[in-house]
Amino acid sequence: MNGMTAEIVTIGTEIIIGDIVNTHAQYLSQKLASIGISVLYHSSVGDNPARMQEVLRHALTRCDLVIVTGGLGPTTDDLTKETICEMLEIPLVEDPRAKTEILEFFRRRGISCTENNMKQAMVPENGVIFYNKYGTAPGMAVQKGTSCVIMLPGPPKELRPMFDEQAFPYLKQFSDREIVSHHIRFFGLGESTIADRLGSLTDSSDPTLALYAKEGEVSARITACRPTREEAEAAMLPMMDTIRSMFGNDIYGIDAESLEQVVVRELLSRKCQIATAESCTGGLLAQKITSVPGASDCFQYGLVSYSNTVKYAQLGVPEWVLRKYTAVSRQTAFYMAKGALKNSGADIALAVTGLAGPGGGTPEQPVGTVYLAAATRQYTWVRHLTLGHGKGNERDMIRNVAAKNALDMARRILKNNSSL
Amino acid sequence: MNGMTAEIVTIGTEIIIGDIVNTHAQYLSQKLASIGISVLYHSSVGDNPARMQEVLRHALTRCDLVIVTGGLGPTTDDLTKETICEMLEIPLVEDPRAKTEILEFFRRRGISCTENNMKQAMVPENGVIFYNKYGTAPGMAVQKGTSCVIMLPGPPKELRPMFDEQAFPYLKQFSDREIVSHHIRFFGLGESTIADRLGSLTDSSDPTLALYAKEGEVSARITACRPTREEAEAAMLPMMDTIRSMFGNDIYGIDAESLEQVVVRELLSRKCQIATAESCTGGLLAQKITSVPGASDCFQYGLVSYSNTVKYAQLGVPEWVLRKYTAVSRQTAFYMAKGALKNSGADIALAVTGLAGPGGGTPEQPVGTVYLAAATRQYTWVRHLTLGHGKGNERDMIRNVAAKNALDMARRILKNNSSL
Repeated sequence: MNGMTAEIVTIGTEIIIGDIVNTHAQYLSQKLASIGISVLYHSSVGDNPARMQEVLRHALTRCDLVIVTGGLGPTTDDLTKETICEMLEIPLVEDPRAKTEILEFFRRRGISCTENNMKQAMVPENGVIFYNKYGTAPGMAVQKGTSCVIMLPGPPKELRPMFDEQAFPYLKQFSDREIVSHHIRFFGLGESTIADRLGSLTDSSDPTLALYAKEGEVSARITACRPTREEAEAAMLPMMDTIRSMFGNDIYGIDAESLEQVVVRELLSRKCQIATAESCTGGLLAQKITSVPGASDCFQYGLVSYSNTVKYAQLGVPEWVLRKYTAVSRQTAFYMAKGALKNSGADIALAVTGLAGPGGGTPEQPVGTVYLAAATRQYTWVRHLTLGHGKGNERDMIRNVAAKNALDMARRILKNNSSL
Repeated sequence: MNGMTAEIVTIGTEIIIGDIVNTHAQYLSQKLASIGISVLYHSSVGDNPARMQEVLRHALTRCDLVIVTGGLGPTTDDLTKETICEMLEIPLVEDPRAKTEILEFFRRRGISCTENNMKQAMVPENGVIFYNKYGTAPGMAVQKGTSCVIMLPGPPKELRPMFDEQAFPYLKQFSDREIVSHHIRFFGLGESTIADRLGSLTDSSDPTLALYAKEGEVSARITACRPTREEAEAAMLPMMDTIRSMFGNDIYGIDAESLEQVVVRELLSRKCQIATAESCTGGLLAQKITSVPGASDCFQYGLVSYSNTVKYAQLGVPEWVLRKYTAVSRQTAFYMAKGALKNSGADIALAVTGLAGPGGGTPEQPVGTVYLAAATRQYTWVRHLTLGHGKGNERDMIRNVAAKNALDMARRILKNNSSL
């Protein structure tokens, strides 16, 4: 069944009234794409038997595979299984293992199991059953003619492991290829600069290459499609190597790792300590570092110095510097980093000062002006940024990009200074 | 057109391949629900003319109102408008204002406008045009017989203001009622305690009352449906007042305000200063406070003391306290708050120390153990929490709930101490 097409049908009134966002459709679409199954439609409908039936019937006329989520619960509203089996003329039979598991589920929790709950032990005859580790409703797959329907429970905590561990392996039988992607993550270069340098690589059709930009970062997604994952990986390797050697340190990681994870990993492996002194980021930089488990072995000291008094009294930024250059200046950033290095005894200290807005901007120093400094015992570096478009609603973005730039400075210092 | 039904159709290959999650459907569903329009279906389809046409045609057969998002851009893939006008047999005409705005948009950015961009100035004859403040594609509404179709641009930054300011007022003509909700936000009580105290109020059918719990907070949603917003507000008032008087300070706000916004607002109005000393939250508490615009007038000093050395050297936590009681203790939290108060000269200082995991837990002191302290010049309060279920993946939740609890202590102190 090469070139299989699919529709994802999510059943649940909470979705169509807007109480929750439909994350299942995205999750399942990504997974199906990775094995070359083309998702053509997403549909959502409430727990209404007539409308649900109409949507499912319509889905079966236009796609080979229909994945239905929700409506497998114990209440009389939950009619997914009954509707589909009626449409496909498949009888429902009691599954002994599902029954045992449901009884066991209730026994362990010390609550009694109602007649309704036993409805969940009914499964389509000759169907493939996906037992539920995290709830009572089993999932299932049925085939009839050229149609395949997969039913999954609505709660994400039940759906995701069930899909990954059982439905996905089941679906692989219909696929003769794997689509694998890697993300190369850049920091310090703009999207257009990267596109220029990549040149004709961006036109490559196999593997494909696409650039994405978001809050100061750029990533390149490289994708290959081959009969197996191993072959796809091999097909991407030359392009990955080329890009790695073209961009060197402007690449901070591959796939999911964040800047703070890279910095903490590097600090731990080098047994180095980092400290922070923050003005406009107000604790965000320290928070990012300490969000990484194990950060307590490389981070001890972070100061949020949100006033001149604290910059002077706690970090030793000279009063004449604050007076002559103001708090938002490369000089203040420099002395903040020096002060944090001294107070902490760390190997690297990062400092951020700037205007996150919405208020406080001037024509000479608009909102989005940020100075960063990174000090080691030998040197101190300063970076100047002008972020945003001068709109009032960019406070969060400015703080976030400023903190990421500080992490990037630490990352580059760790890369370039083996003697630290 | 009482009891109007609606379908939301999102057009975009990026949605069906799972690159982005369909947040438009949720956003629009909530808004439509608020004026009594029943959303019955959500559909998504890629930028494929035949499939798009099929989905739109189907939507028009089963709902009075179809809201279509996306596919209004300048490329040949963008066919929403053309498809709908063809189906409804409405000719497209050039709109002079849309044309002027598109030309102006390009002029301001100093880039040249292509023939394709002018395609966006074509609008349905006799349609209602929603001009686009944040992009080039205008939105529009057309009516034919009993059908109404609204087309909106795909980018959220364009869609949301256009919908709120133009499409929503337009849609109100079809509605004879408004559904209004308020959220009462609690902190410091569990969901079941609140439910118990609310008693029979939770059974009320008009207005309705529903409880939601999330990361340490509980909120009660009160909803009423009336011909006008004013009547709905009046219908909710007695229940709102009853709940307010039942719970007093355990309610921290109504509707969208966060704990940090409440605390900063209260500090600013009282001209009070706050300071922080954080261990396990690692800067998150300071970050929350400084995320509120204007926080620089009530917050100057925040220390992240992630080691015993820093707690001792910077905050003056006595060495014998750290030795006898360890860093995670009510005594350490007490001295941390005292030290931050002294260093900062603030009116209130908050301190957090605890085990966020995943490592570091013991049988006596499991991951999730947190001590908080709040010091003023007169008193110091300490709060002890045991958060989470001892699973390894709760670091973010533990840090977040710990920071929220610290903010809640500040909030209660400000409420109860008029002399501060």
